[in-house]
Amino acid sequence: MIDPTADLLPEGLEDRLPRSAAAATRIERAMLAAMDAHGYDRVRPPLIEFEKSMASRTDGLRTRNMFRFVDPRSLRMLALRSDMTAQVGRIAATGLGAAPRPLRLCYAGQVARMTGDMLDPRRENLQIGAELIGSESAAAAGEIVELAIDALEAAGAQGISVDFTLPDLVDTLAAKEMPLDPAQVQAVRRELDAKDAGGLKAAGGEAYIPLLYATGAFDDAAAKLASLDDGGVLASRIDGLRQIADRIDGRARLTLDPSERHGFEYQTWFGFTIYADGVRSALGRGGTYRIGGSEEVATGFSLYPEELIEAVKAEEPLPQAVFLPLGHDREAAARLRGEGWRTVAALSEGDDAMALGCSHRLEGSAAKPL
Amino acid sequence: MIDPTADLLPEGLEDRLPRSAAAATRIERAMLAAMDAHGYDRVRPPLIEFEKSMASRTDGLRTRNMFRFVDPRSLRMLALRSDMTAQVGRIAATGLGAAPRPLRLCYAGQVARMTGDMLDPRRENLQIGAELIGSESAAAAGEIVELAIDALEAAGAQGISVDFTLPDLVDTLAAKEMPLDPAQVQAVRRELDAKDAGGLKAAGGEAYIPLLYATGAFDDAAAKLASLDDGGVLASRIDGLRQIADRIDGRARLTLDPSERHGFEYQTWFGFTIYADGVRSALGRGGTYRIGGSEEVATGFSLYPEELIEAVKAEEPLPQAVFLPLGHDREAAARLRGEGWRTVAALSEGDDAMALGCSHRLEGSAAKPL
Repeated sequence: MIDPTADLLPEGLEDRLPRSAAAATRIERAMLAAMDAHGYDRVRPPLIEFEKSMASRTDGLRTRNMFRFVDPRSLRMLALRSDMTAQVGRIAATGLGAAPRPLRLCYAGQVARMTGDMLDPRRENLQIGAELIGSESAAAAGEIVELAIDALEAAGAQGISVDFTLPDLVDTLAAKEMPLDPAQVQAVRRELDAKDAGGLKAAGGEAYIPLLYATGAFDDAAAKLASLDDGGVLASRIDGLRQIADRIDGRARLTLDPSERHGFEYQTWFGFTIYADGVRSALGRGGTYRIGGSEEVATGFSLYPEELIEAVKAEEPLPQAVFLPLGHDREAAARLRGEGWRTVAALSEGDDAMALGCSHRLEGSAAKPL
Repeated sequence: MIDPTADLLPEGLEDRLPRSAAAATRIERAMLAAMDAHGYDRVRPPLIEFEKSMASRTDGLRTRNMFRFVDPRSLRMLALRSDMTAQVGRIAATGLGAAPRPLRLCYAGQVARMTGDMLDPRRENLQIGAELIGSESAAAAGEIVELAIDALEAAGAQGISVDFTLPDLVDTLAAKEMPLDPAQVQAVRRELDAKDAGGLKAAGGEAYIPLLYATGAFDDAAAKLASLDDGGVLASRIDGLRQIADRIDGRARLTLDPSERHGFEYQTWFGFTIYADGVRSALGRGGTYRIGGSEEVATGFSLYPEELIEAVKAEEPLPQAVFLPLGHDREAAARLRGEGWRTVAALSEGDDAMALGCSHRLEGSAAKPL
């Protein structure tokens, strides 16, 4: 089917028509409700901020790919948000700087970026997430991973899997057990990301090759990783991962890819990516980090339910509606709405109940099937 | 109290912290639910569009006050939306161009503008509205006014009043009953807007002076207006207003200011502004119009609940939460959440239930008051 709006909207931007909008609204609310149930208060930051403020709050957030423009009031550069995590970090450090810790905040909103990428050409996304501010412990990480699973399940995702990683693995090992020159660290990280044993050897990181095989199903991979850790510098991290895994216990397939760093460049000890059956790309990711500026520790996740919405929108139930003919009993119509019915009122004789999506018609004071 | 975020956000932009965010979310959902109950399907257009497309869809929408920037993909100018009505008009004309009429659509989202004004310094607003596409009849206008009242009542507004106007009044009269040169029309409109009898006389619009007095409580003002309409050119309009007024009957205070045109420059025969007790400015406005480009007739409203949110946020109820001590019964906690409780889990021995806003504590499998 040709989308008649295709040439009317810029590449990577689209309208959500009724079914897709209903699915997005339902999923957004289900996720917010799951986070609320665990004590996470929603905050709503603005669409626009000073570019400098966006940039300083999370090291990982590049403003290069944000839509930017000059503020006619301050003559400073503004940016349209491409990520809400940095905004929530700013709120935690300022407006809620004096609130007791741990501080639990959540958010949902549209974010935009100047260019899409090969994996995802979208330039606007719905971002939904939670931040647990003031802790980066295994307990905090366990709560956050479980909450991400709760939120996805509430939204209807099935067959959830979670892939754990240790973002600062190379730094930790290079400092002690598997020494590397500072110049080598970058190269070793790069070859680990590329899963290239030959490249690792060439980069002087031969000792790191076994890490390439400490991946896969969580229990096995964690055992392999532990067996490589002669000096025990990873012991607290592996123990933390096991605590998180115990907590998830059967609610999701768990895997470990301890040297995966792509997308986790600015996390501290723990990171995770989350997937669901029937959805090709990752639905979100999270981990432990430090808030830029305040340097407070935090743990959180961001979900991007776009593909989940696409996957379910065809089955999104349409509301049953009662057609209200001209001159209908208006009190009866109001009563039906109060009972949860949707009503569609005739404006003229020509209005067609079936064409307008009605399954019933108000006759007297009762809804009769069409 | 000094807002510690004040210097961190650009003028006219602000964070909603938890209470304000909760009020905004509750009000947004209540309004969407009211519109859904009357058969209005939500659509979700993107934050950004081609500037040209935004400009062409409603005559009244000036892109001058929109944040604009060059699209690196198309090299065309994009604009951040300052109004969603134009977007819904585009959807009605394109993606839903083939959907049966009347077409009922609603929306809720953030809009932004480059500069605020004296009455409202905000540069970002929550806009919520409904569009009834394919009709501008008195029946359509009655449904739309009643729906705006329903939506505001659902959001908790009290003491609603609605001010009607006839945006094309001068054009209608000038064409027949009170003839004016095309050059005089502008001046007469301006002096009517200024409520300046002397100015009207000077502009050659002496015949229009009585219109200044056909204002106030609806029934009286409508009767005065009808008495001025010797030739009956306003008869169908006055009859339409009376049909709408009959329908509202007691649900809102009704007034008429037939020559009020400010903000209704691009409406057709009917316009209205809506207010509530305790809220200084108008909460929204609406009326009949033609969709730019397709020229299809439509009737709709936009609400800006910002001040309503501010008015209620202090009383926004905080959820009761149950503190979950370390080592708590996790099934009992999940069961409490299933029953609608909010839980807050301890991450360490130091976590303070009261400071974290809890009213109860999980002991065994039961929530006990603190």
